[in-house]
Amino acid sequence: MRIGILGAGQLGRMLALAGMPLGQRFVFYDTTGSPSAGIGEVISDPERAQVESFLEQVDLVSFEFEHLPLDLVEFIETRKPVLPGSRALKICQHRGEEKALFDRLAIPTPEYRLVDSAEALCAATEELGAPVVAKSVTEGYDGKGQAVLRHPDEAEAAWHRIGHPQLIVETMVDFVREVSIIAVRSRDGEVRCYPMAENQHVEGILRYSVAPLPDLAASTQQQANAYIQSLLEALDYVGVLTLELFQTHDGQLLANEMAPRVHNSGHWSQDGAVTSQFENHLRAVAGLPLGSTEARLPSCMINMIGREADARALLSLPDVHLHRYDKSERPGRKLGHVNVVANDHATLLERVRTCVTCLPEAPPVSFSFEHD
Amino acid sequence: MRIGILGAGQLGRMLALAGMPLGQRFVFYDTTGSPSAGIGEVISDPERAQVESFLEQVDLVSFEFEHLPLDLVEFIETRKPVLPGSRALKICQHRGEEKALFDRLAIPTPEYRLVDSAEALCAATEELGAPVVAKSVTEGYDGKGQAVLRHPDEAEAAWHRIGHPQLIVETMVDFVREVSIIAVRSRDGEVRCYPMAENQHVEGILRYSVAPLPDLAASTQQQANAYIQSLLEALDYVGVLTLELFQTHDGQLLANEMAPRVHNSGHWSQDGAVTSQFENHLRAVAGLPLGSTEARLPSCMINMIGREADARALLSLPDVHLHRYDKSERPGRKLGHVNVVANDHATLLERVRTCVTCLPEAPPVSFSFEHD
Repeated sequence: MRIGILGAGQLGRMLALAGMPLGQRFVFYDTTGSPSAGIGEVISDPERAQVESFLEQVDLVSFEFEHLPLDLVEFIETRKPVLPGSRALKICQHRGEEKALFDRLAIPTPEYRLVDSAEALCAATEELGAPVVAKSVTEGYDGKGQAVLRHPDEAEAAWHRIGHPQLIVETMVDFVREVSIIAVRSRDGEVRCYPMAENQHVEGILRYSVAPLPDLAASTQQQANAYIQSLLEALDYVGVLTLELFQTHDGQLLANEMAPRVHNSGHWSQDGAVTSQFENHLRAVAGLPLGSTEARLPSCMINMIGREADARALLSLPDVHLHRYDKSERPGRKLGHVNVVANDHATLLERVRTCVTCLPEAPPVSFSFEHD
Repeated sequence: MRIGILGAGQLGRMLALAGMPLGQRFVFYDTTGSPSAGIGEVISDPERAQVESFLEQVDLVSFEFEHLPLDLVEFIETRKPVLPGSRALKICQHRGEEKALFDRLAIPTPEYRLVDSAEALCAATEELGAPVVAKSVTEGYDGKGQAVLRHPDEAEAAWHRIGHPQLIVETMVDFVREVSIIAVRSRDGEVRCYPMAENQHVEGILRYSVAPLPDLAASTQQQANAYIQSLLEALDYVGVLTLELFQTHDGQLLANEMAPRVHNSGHWSQDGAVTSQFENHLRAVAGLPLGSTEARLPSCMINMIGREADARALLSLPDVHLHRYDKSERPGRKLGHVNVVANDHATLLERVRTCVTCLPEAPPVSFSFEHD
């Protein structure tokens, strides 16, 4: 089976690494002009002149990145199966539509308003009560296109700084931790959920993810499973979907945003789960049975941001697995990640802290379950 | 780091899949005219006209196949580091030299004679006592170039059937099982050994490998570790080395042959060990610290020979991992393998037997530890 991937970054690279053992071949179609997959056939085509040639080489199409030209995906869909399809993509490209879907499915989210002027942003901030976070409804990721407003009079400056014609303004939730649930749905509707991860972000960029969580109530996992299952079914979705949530002091979950793809907070599954999120995405889109989403052992993913780690020092540590993306160093750029595995969470955190000493500029590790 | 691999089959493919996450890039140099790696840059050059171009693209060279032109490897060695080097290759290409090394290191082997005529083969068969196995001293693998003689008067026919100017004739050992030990040695001389595997061959081709073994005495593993360590040190070897042995009724080990590379009997390590043999080979040759060779769980490798398995049926089974080589079907050809993992050996064997029903032409599974 020949699989076309829209986008050619590290997620595509890791999909190919997981899919080749299944006998799949990969062709990447990149519209950014800077592909980095470094595996399979890569068509870099910012002018979109080679779409036909791409389509001839593939049996079906998936994507590793949701900020794709929707018209391109809709066109491809007239020619080859696209999994997940343009409907999921369209909703995930627009925070307003995403919130509306959460509302429709009774998935709780932080209270929000949509605004299309600095004045409306100011009014929404007053109405919701500062602090609030304002985000462009489209194109934002990794904390880009966002601003925190601590007072309504910051609206004018924030509006101009973000520079987008429509924003979503949300109550800042007083959360205990950020978590995510990743699930996969097969072509025949089977759904499997990974154990939830706790995610530590710094300046909007994911730094650490741990799964499974030692202090997670079974009912919380079940609640998250139910939320993501309702999303998967509402979208008649095939493949891996990610839902990021806040967990509040009373244990409740509030949906933050979703991503229609394999996700950085699921990279731990490469070394810590029976079947990785990458393999399960490919099993799903290829119409194969899903693999177990169970965790083998407690695992932590550490992102390598901006500068390469000391690989020699990292690999001298027990049960540490390096995943480099073969990209050049640049501030804020995701260059790779490290998965650490251990028999118990205490050993895991000890190992993670040792790894962190090998990573330039890595922030201190702080997971909520350590402070109980 | 750019790694050149001599040979471009499935072992090279799996090396690249393991090495890319370490940030390594791969260039394959194939002299057979039928490369199948399907990953990285492949130079297919039966005329050996593009060696220079290959060498320009790599920092060091390793190999996935020992039946390489020795002069080619010796030439490459004058230009780039070759790990493991031509010395190990030369010995592993010649069963006579291999046996001499075993003798020198006091590693017990079945009794043997070198013969260079049908008459000498007949005499050796009488002297050793039939049955014996005669093998060409060079170029044999997967049971090719071999014959079993049940009587000295079969010597003439066997000599002509094998058709090689020199043979090694060995006593047929009355063994309980065939086992192998795989070890890796780093550039600075550190050695790590994998748990021994039991290997089931049919018609000279490996079909099943299980590791670790539930009934293996610790002293037997230690004996095998000592044998392979002495080989690694005698050859000043860097990378993964495999030693196949017979285990006799009194528990003794007799060396059969060695392979200077990652080995089919170590494929279980991809899903069953903390670090796979492929990753450890690449860590070693790249001068990185070695990873743990510990098994996580009991694992079994099932080869897919000649015909593709029913992937859909296989992937519906728990903890079953498919590794296809993207090759076309042909009788006797290795097309892929399946790794099965379980919490205990009883469950493992049950799962393996279920897998076998999905594999056309797979022989019955029979491991010695089941019959105790």
